[in-house]
Amino acid sequence: MAPVKNGRVLFNEVPTGHPVPGRTTVYDDSQTIDPDTVPLNGGFLVKTLVISIDPYIRGKMSWLYVIGQPISNYGVGVVLRSEDPAFKPGDHVYSGDFLCQEYIVVNSASKFRVLENKEKLPWSVYVGVCGMPGQTAHHAWREFAHAPKGKVAFVSSGAGPVGATVIQLAKQDGLKVIASAGSDEKVEFMKSIGADVAFNYKKEKTVDVLQREGPINIYWDNVGGETFEAALNAAATGARFIECGMISGYNGEAPYLVKNLMLIVVKELQVSGFVITSLHAKHLEDFYRDIPPAVARGEIKYLEERRFGLEHIGEALLDTLTGRIKGKGVIVVAQE
Amino acid sequence: MAPVKNGRVLFNEVPTGHPVPGRTTVYDDSQTIDPDTVPLNGGFLVKTLVISIDPYIRGKMSWLYVIGQPISNYGVGVVLRSEDPAFKPGDHVYSGDFLCQEYIVVNSASKFRVLENKEKLPWSVYVGVCGMPGQTAHHAWREFAHAPKGKVAFVSSGAGPVGATVIQLAKQDGLKVIASAGSDEKVEFMKSIGADVAFNYKKEKTVDVLQREGPINIYWDNVGGETFEAALNAAATGARFIECGMISGYNGEAPYLVKNLMLIVVKELQVSGFVITSLHAKHLEDFYRDIPPAVARGEIKYLEERRFGLEHIGEALLDTLTGRIKGKGVIVVAQE
Repeated sequence: MAPVKNGRVLFNEVPTGHPVPGRTTVYDDSQTIDPDTVPLNGGFLVKTLVISIDPYIRGKMSWLYVIGQPISNYGVGVVLRSEDPAFKPGDHVYSGDFLCQEYIVVNSASKFRVLENKEKLPWSVYVGVCGMPGQTAHHAWREFAHAPKGKVAFVSSGAGPVGATVIQLAKQDGLKVIASAGSDEKVEFMKSIGADVAFNYKKEKTVDVLQREGPINIYWDNVGGETFEAALNAAATGARFIECGMISGYNGEAPYLVKNLMLIVVKELQVSGFVITSLHAKHLEDFYRDIPPAVARGEIKYLEERRFGLEHIGEALLDTLTGRIKGKGVIVVAQE
Repeated sequence: MAPVKNGRVLFNEVPTGHPVPGRTTVYDDSQTIDPDTVPLNGGFLVKTLVISIDPYIRGKMSWLYVIGQPISNYGVGVVLRSEDPAFKPGDHVYSGDFLCQEYIVVNSASKFRVLENKEKLPWSVYVGVCGMPGQTAHHAWREFAHAPKGKVAFVSSGAGPVGATVIQLAKQDGLKVIASAGSDEKVEFMKSIGADVAFNYKKEKTVDVLQREGPINIYWDNVGGETFEAALNAAATGARFIECGMISGYNGEAPYLVKNLMLIVVKELQVSGFVITSLHAKHLEDFYRDIPPAVARGEIKYLEERRFGLEHIGEALLDTLTGRIKGKGVIVVAQE
């Protein structure tokens, strides 16, 4: 095989607010690679199939990515050649350290997992409901929720891949679920996956909906700020707040300042922050045992928006951060 | 015995900021009582010995006390007469519902506990380190701290009756203890009870001290606001925040608004609010078994400021809220 283009997405500039496609990141197709001859040095060569687009890529722009180097995120690819006995050509591999480029020589095998995919799900699902977002929902719900049937959960960003999975896990546990998102289309989706009360926070005030439908025993927080404040107001005594993210403060805007933190004391709240990697040891094998089959049976549904080509990463990220993506954002880099 | 004066402290007006002695509460000595003949209706007559002065009295002014009626708080008294077989004349009783008056006919026996006091401690101690403040420290430290030896705890308001007990429990567990208070005299007291690092937050910025002495694994929060923000900055991954109170917001001032709540997520913090009454069932009998003997042996020390006479309650409360009381504030109402 002759050398082929190896397109990459390079980090170009630390953004101050929202990332600017073409400026914060740039697509570069100046490099080539010969898949047949590129030295592997004991590693393996992967052809990238899908790259995940997630809000926390914005966070990594502040502390992880190096100017001039490819950005990285969760992805799935197929092994083309290998000198590592644990990875065979044809294996599909998953990692959170996928470089955003078409071909990758991997020498950090410990960060890659071979996906079995007995259920023959689309590979993109493995960066969504069967990947990190699904794991986030699954692990933290199992770790922190402990809510008996009939209690009330409130899920913010309920149409995103994490929130949508949380809604369905909460319904499976027999809870009443209130869920918010920023468009009527997302509201319809949240209803379709079982939310008892779904609302568009741009049309109806969160504090009013929770006043009417609460008090709440669980708050799954994806957004922080004013929504967190409304959840504090509506919390029942002993409610648990699962702090997954505070997207409202991700883009360098002045964060909304919460005025009622005292309610943490008087309502005896348990507020738990978490980072998914710390929960894998306890919950990851359960996840791979339980969730992909449930997705295959249609018991856990998902919504995905695919875009095609690495050159669209910048725009897809911006659309994710501003709520213009429906469901899980995925870049399809190549077909097999 | 002829009728005697039954002085009372009446709630007169809901304060907007700090309570104003003589206006928020007024001392009234217009009533009399005849201890020998007052009808008991199956209850018992108590002579009040000590009344506790605590910051949360300010809170009760907003939701509990009734204009024109006596205020109430924790206290200890001696039973003079009784028609209730569970309470005998000469018994010393403790309750959180002590009316602030010299003599009380009690018909809510379930809210009163007979104190054994085998250790012959001063009765005032039973509204301090052996009463609700000590219970607050004990119960929540046992419930939430779970910190192995060598870890670092930060205690705000470390010279108050709760904070001082927390410092000593943390030292008994082998932790390094950082403690803050608002005067040099309080700093000396905190050092005398074992704090490894004690500082006056009016002279040295909390954020600077924690930067130097942290990161912290436990934050015992009595104050909230800017101190909470500094503790978030200095928190180690997985740190536990024990949210006992946020005194900085008690007096109707605009609360300081915390800007870094996102750190709850990224540092995987466990933030636990609590109300002492919810923890009694699990911890109260351990408390009475362990703490009074430890106090009698001098293993747990305390600092107490006694003032004499119910008419000084308003001023004592104001001094407690503004940090002008040294240690636990107590009103001695009568000697036996």
